[in-house]
Amino acid sequence: MEFTAEKIARITGGEITGDPGVKVYTVARIEEGSKGALSFLANPKYTQYLYTTHSSVVLVDKNFQPEQEVRATLIRVKDAYVAIAKILEVYNMEKFDKKGISSMARVSENARIGKNVYIGDMAFIGDGVTIGDNTMIFPLAHIGDGTTVGKNCRIFQGVKLYDNMVVGNDCTLHAGVVVGSDGFGFAPQSDNHYKKITQIGNVVIEDDVEIGANTTIDRATIGSTIIRKGVKLDNLIQIAHNVEIGENTVIAAQSGIAGSTKIGRNCMIAAQVGIVGHIKIGDNAKIAAQSGISSDVKDNSIVFGSPAFDHSKYRKAYVHFRNLDQIVRRINDMETKLKNLEGENS
Amino acid sequence: MEFTAEKIARITGGEITGDPGVKVYTVARIEEGSKGALSFLANPKYTQYLYTTHSSVVLVDKNFQPEQEVRATLIRVKDAYVAIAKILEVYNMEKFDKKGISSMARVSENARIGKNVYIGDMAFIGDGVTIGDNTMIFPLAHIGDGTTVGKNCRIFQGVKLYDNMVVGNDCTLHAGVVVGSDGFGFAPQSDNHYKKITQIGNVVIEDDVEIGANTTIDRATIGSTIIRKGVKLDNLIQIAHNVEIGENTVIAAQSGIAGSTKIGRNCMIAAQVGIVGHIKIGDNAKIAAQSGISSDVKDNSIVFGSPAFDHSKYRKAYVHFRNLDQIVRRINDMETKLKNLEGENS
Amino acid sequence: MEFTAEKIARITGGEITGDPGVKVYTVARIEEGSKGALSFLANPKYTQYLYTTHSSVVLVDKNFQPEQEVRATLIRVKDAYVAIAKILEVYNMEKFDKKGISSMARVSENARIGKNVYIGDMAFIGDGVTIGDNTMIFPLAHIGDGTTVGKNCRIFQGVKLYDNMVVGNDCTLHAGVVVGSDGFGFAPQSDNHYKKITQIGNVVIEDDVEIGANTTIDRATIGSTIIRKGVKLDNLIQIAHNVEIGENTVIAAQSGIAGSTKIGRNCMIAAQVGIVGHIKIGDNAKIAAQSGISSDVKDNSIVFGSPAFDHSKYRKAYVHFRNLDQIVRRINDMETKLKNLEGENS
Repeated sequence: MEFTAEKIARITGGEITGDPGVKVYTVARIEEGSKGALSFLANPKYTQYLYTTHSSVVLVDKNFQPEQEVRATLIRVKDAYVAIAKILEVYNMEKFDKKGISSMARVSENARIGKNVYIGDMAFIGDGVTIGDNTMIFPLAHIGDGTTVGKNCRIFQGVKLYDNMVVGNDCTLHAGVVVGSDGFGFAPQSDNHYKKITQIGNVVIEDDVEIGANTTIDRATIGSTIIRKGVKLDNLIQIAHNVEIGENTVIAAQSGIAGSTKIGRNCMIAAQVGIVGHIKIGDNAKIAAQSGISSDVKDNSIVFGSPAFDHSKYRKAYVHFRNLDQIVRRINDMETKLKNLEGENS
Repeated sequence: MEFTAEKIARITGGEITGDPGVKVYTVARIEEGSKGALSFLANPKYTQYLYTTHSSVVLVDKNFQPEQEVRATLIRVKDAYVAIAKILEVYNMEKFDKKGISSMARVSENARIGKNVYIGDMAFIGDGVTIGDNTMIFPLAHIGDGTTVGKNCRIFQGVKLYDNMVVGNDCTLHAGVVVGSDGFGFAPQSDNHYKKITQIGNVVIEDDVEIGANTTIDRATIGSTIIRKGVKLDNLIQIAHNVEIGENTVIAAQSGIAGSTKIGRNCMIAAQVGIVGHIKIGDNAKIAAQSGISSDVKDNSIVFGSPAFDHSKYRKAYVHFRNLDQIVRRINDMETKLKNLEGENS
Repeated sequence: MEFTAEKIARITGGEITGDPGVKVYTVARIEEGSKGALSFLANPKYTQYLYTTHSSVVLVDKNFQPEQEVRATLIRVKDAYVAIAKILEVYNMEKFDKKGISSMARVSENARIGKNVYIGDMAFIGDGVTIGDNTMIFPLAHIGDGTTVGKNCRIFQGVKLYDNMVVGNDCTLHAGVVVGSDGFGFAPQSDNHYKKITQIGNVVIEDDVEIGANTTIDRATIGSTIIRKGVKLDNLIQIAHNVEIGENTVIAAQSGIAGSTKIGRNCMIAAQVGIVGHIKIGDNAKIAAQSGISSDVKDNSIVFGSPAFDHSKYRKAYVHFRNLDQIVRRINDMETKLKNLEGENS
């Protein structure tokens, strides 16, 4: 990133007070800024830091009037928060301006590659692969035979897609993601060993999905494991075979969904949650962190615990759990008193 | 996959009703089938779908008589379920028919490579490596110096084996698996910093083991971390240094086993379980999901909870936990009544 | 590893009894040793194995006198335990003696590479990268544009550093580690879909840090996710955006820290712990395995549970939890007795 104050003013439609030629190379919080940093002041609570910041350029609101001397170059904009977002968008577009196919990649002759595609060094693009326009395949990524990746996707370094997977448009798969490993299906034999159940399905990832680093999604036994439009998965999540995750559901890090479970739309599943196989989570459900879900969850429920139940009941029960030692002492007391009363009455 | 109805009939010894030339490219459930799909009807409950399915070919039992018109080409076989399994086996054999060593791989001159081996693009085969017959090393996999991989193995894309590891015959390691990272061993020093304890052991994986995507297995400090014959590990599992896992034990996703713990044979360990170090889990033990195991578990036990104990006792205790609010109200009531009785008796 | 008894005696300053030319290729426990192995006898409890071991060479203490015949070549040293450590150090130095830049790596022309650096096959070194002296980048690792790696680091196979990351000196990153994936930040929109919040910060890893296999560390939204000097992270850990981990804190496998949480110095966080975002964990805190931390933890605290509280109170409460069935039976009994008493008194 290298922006002059002048370029920033041009992008944001702002007015400069100070040196238009000063350059910034990074964005920093106003209280942590150093030379070469761009900061912004959107919250009046932070105004004090404007007078001490070492940042080179600070975006402020149009009508802001400093009450002390300011070292930084100021750029007055309509809305400092919106302006910084614009700058970041431009920065990201410029950052991700890589194009072309590396001669150090292995691209199958019969792969269909769209326009404006980037394929990095040592990337593997198998037979019969389709890559949509403007998609970026970073170095050391693996796109297995027959897999389709849509438009405007970013498949980061070291992502591993197996054969015959389907990824929609506008998807981001972070480093180390695995899509299409075999489902965990084994049939026990009489001699205690297990026979593998052949897994021949695939994974279908719809549009606008983001998948975090080192998350794993297994192929279906038959048919497809499905990640619907707008789903956001954090890092190190496990999605088993034949799972379906509904539109716009978000799942935080290290959660796991066992085989054939269907999750509704707009759910919020916190971190380190475990969900057993073959159940149904309703739409708009919320599941608290570290919960264990062992049966169906209704639409709009909020659940907590392992096994999980209604979250406010869980919290109430847990308060008592914390007090169990005192509760047991009360029971001991009562037993003594009861014995005394029985003695008196006998 | 590209099979004509004729080829399917030949493989399965079936009889065709319909077009012997129709082609199928995938397998689908009968209720979800589309043109070009192969389905099967084994369960009479699904018979209704036979008349509406869009699948091109359907395998049915020998004596099946349709009661309505059927669009699909039918193949009558002795047992539709067995037949589909046969087809899948043939499909998988043909699918994994890759052979030869890519010129874009790096294969050490002194590596010993068996017959019929596949080594994919950008794979790394270090010095002194041995690869057995019919084994497939997929693109971007890393086989460290001195490591041995047996016969008929599939080492998928992006697997990372460190130096001097041992993998038996008929093993499958899914994408992103790491075998041989250092054990987590550090000696605390007086100034609060930690000194690394050198880890020089390895990992020995016996025959017929399957390891899921992004699972990690640490090398032993000295000696070997051992995964016995027939063990099946799901995705994102952590196996620490010097652990030993007994024959035919299965472990579900995201579980972790700490250092030096020994796990028996034929155990079933569910997902997201944590097991502390230096303990012993007996043969045939079953551990429920999300349990935390902090001490030895006897042969044939079933345990649940964190810390875990007998699973039926846990379930009973948990029922009371859910009712704690009501239990405390009963205690409150009794205290009031006791006070009243004491007042009366005084 | 290939050491003669003579070389071992030279390194350790020991005296040989037996064949100085015998060679060892590995280190093994004395009770498990086989031909070609080096063992040591430091604990008198294990003396019995000296007479039966198949190890070729055994290190023993200076004054040790065997009471039976010994097959192995003995080397008498001042302290057998210290001696084995010395051997292992030499072994490790020799093992990691790789040097030079592979012609099969992709190294940007404008990367600055220090002295004595090793860059393995198919490694990716982006534009503007800096690599310090004596650092080893193993095959198939990815060092993104603008990233700095210090001196004496080992970046193992398949590590994926994004752009603009900073790694200090003397760091070890194990296979499959991801540093710099986007933080999990999405703004909910009125139509239930989520808009990505651009993540432009980075990750700063200070000196002497070790990071376990397949662990993921997200970049900061703005500013830096910071891993302080001496931190040790185990495998499969999730560190979210803008987290800061204090000096010499150790975290065991599969734990996760949510966004913006600050962790103090010298903490010990056990395995499978979850810590919510935006809280503060004090210095020297200890967190038991599988705990869930939902609010600040004070300096020197020891906590347990999900949600966690004081660990000795947790253990006490959990003992009662295990007995809840019996406790409820006591309550039932008392209710009956009370009813009887009330009947008598009415």
